[in-house]
Amino acid sequence: MRRSGPIDVLAIAAQAVTMGDDVHVRTQAATNLLIKEWLPHLAGAGGGQVAAFARFLSANHLFFLTLAMAAARSLTEWAAGVPDSSIVTSMSRNGTTFGIRLAGSPRWFTAGAPEVGDALYHPGRGPDDGARDIGDSAVLELCGLGAAAAAGSPAVAQLLGGSMAAAAALTERLAAVCAGRSGRFKVPVLGNAGTPLGVDVRKVAEFGTTPAVTTGILHRSAGTGQVGAGVAEAPLSCFTDALTDLDQRLTGPPDQR
Amino acid sequence: MRRSGPIDVLAIAAQAVTMGDDVHVRTQAATNLLIKEWLPHLAGAGGGQVAAFARFLSANHLFFLTLAMAAARSLTEWAAGVPDSSIVTSMSRNGTTFGIRLAGSPRWFTAGAPEVGDALYHPGRGPDDGARDIGDSAVLELCGLGAAAAAGSPAVAQLLGGSMAAAAALTERLAAVCAGRSGRFKVPVLGNAGTPLGVDVRKVAEFGTTPAVTTGILHRSAGTGQVGAGVAEAPLSCFTDALTDLDQRLTGPPDQR
Repeated sequence: MRRSGPIDVLAIAAQAVTMGDDVHVRTQAATNLLIKEWLPHLAGAGGGQVAAFARFLSANHLFFLTLAMAAARSLTEWAAGVPDSSIVTSMSRNGTTFGIRLAGSPRWFTAGAPEVGDALYHPGRGPDDGARDIGDSAVLELCGLGAAAAAGSPAVAQLLGGSMAAAAALTERLAAVCAGRSGRFKVPVLGNAGTPLGVDVRKVAEFGTTPAVTTGILHRSAGTGQVGAGVAEAPLSCFTDALTDLDQRLTGPPDQR
Repeated sequence: MRRSGPIDVLAIAAQAVTMGDDVHVRTQAATNLLIKEWLPHLAGAGGGQVAAFARFLSANHLFFLTLAMAAARSLTEWAAGVPDSSIVTSMSRNGTTFGIRLAGSPRWFTAGAPEVGDALYHPGRGPDDGARDIGDSAVLELCGLGAAAAAGSPAVAQLLGGSMAAAAALTERLAAVCAGRSGRFKVPVLGNAGTPLGVDVRKVAEFGTTPAVTTGILHRSAGTGQVGAGVAEAPLSCFTDALTDLDQRLTGPPDQR
């Protein structure tokens, strides 16, 4: 990083979306674009640490995921400062509990974490090995990536039986509950439409449609790591609870209106 | 190459087709996949030559094109050994002349090289700078790449006004004059159909439809290099001439039948 200077994570993510990454379960194109950027600083540098890092980068096509999550968290941290908003700016899960927060409020609303469906497992692994939905990566779905970018991703389509139409349906389902479209992440097969952006808890409650999350599946046991990937369906009650709370914050309890 | 061992060029090309490369005018994904493969052998190796090569690789997203062309030439060289065939196994152009050969015959059939249409030019360049269709790269169109893989390529779509449907039409147009589909190169947005493979001169003549070639545009002056990219339409007469010759080889001249 000292040699290369700053990396524009979102610009790389935007390129990767046009190359089949949803930038959540699939970050192959983004990782390779990053490798290409760093190559002149890695090659010819000498030193065992550089060689070891290069071997790690070359073998880890999900390397970019962590950078994308951090960038998404920066975006939602900024958005969370908007007061009295119906836009979801936190969405996370820890294997037992699924939680969201709205912009302008520190309060978490939680429900049980879902199982991960539409899954493909690593060889020798199956549903009995997988934990319930887990991790901070669902922040990507709040920033126009993951399920929001599924429509352009053959890898996500593979999770859904292989059809690009099924992947597109995942994106359109998210679009139905979003406030707008990304001006940065464009999907060529959707006529270069922006990916859906800004999950609006009012729309979630109105349609009863929760965000789907394209996600890795971790083993039930700590430390075992990833066993597959699939699509998790966020539970509805935490969204309706958050909307009720927003309503009460804006208008007061029902008996005081 | 000595450090990494053999590279499976066609396997990388197949991955790249699912990542938006047509592997002719666009080889960004393929080049990056190759860089990822080579990274452990480039990093930490030391030496000024390795560093210089790494800088070259990092800055040349068309690096993979030359490898793909050589691999395609190997395939067509094999296919050219099939006797008395109507399948086109050579297709090349030199800026003034466009030529094809059929499998099983050494004879070239030529016509004037076309202008390259549907073009995007580098900044400051335009149609007056571009040579007529030129280069050996059209061999890719004979192997299921280039226009054959256009349907999955946002970069090719940009040459045609931005619509993925226009890129798909280019592929379907080629499919109409091909003998089959690739078992190796699959296009996700076409339901994972193989790319069209094996241009059949009988179909070209029957439909009057020639292969389109997604191609770089070179400057009219030697040594100036690439000024843009576009789509060239192969001239019909060399295909009909080749079919007439095949007919005569198989059945003798008309007056001796």
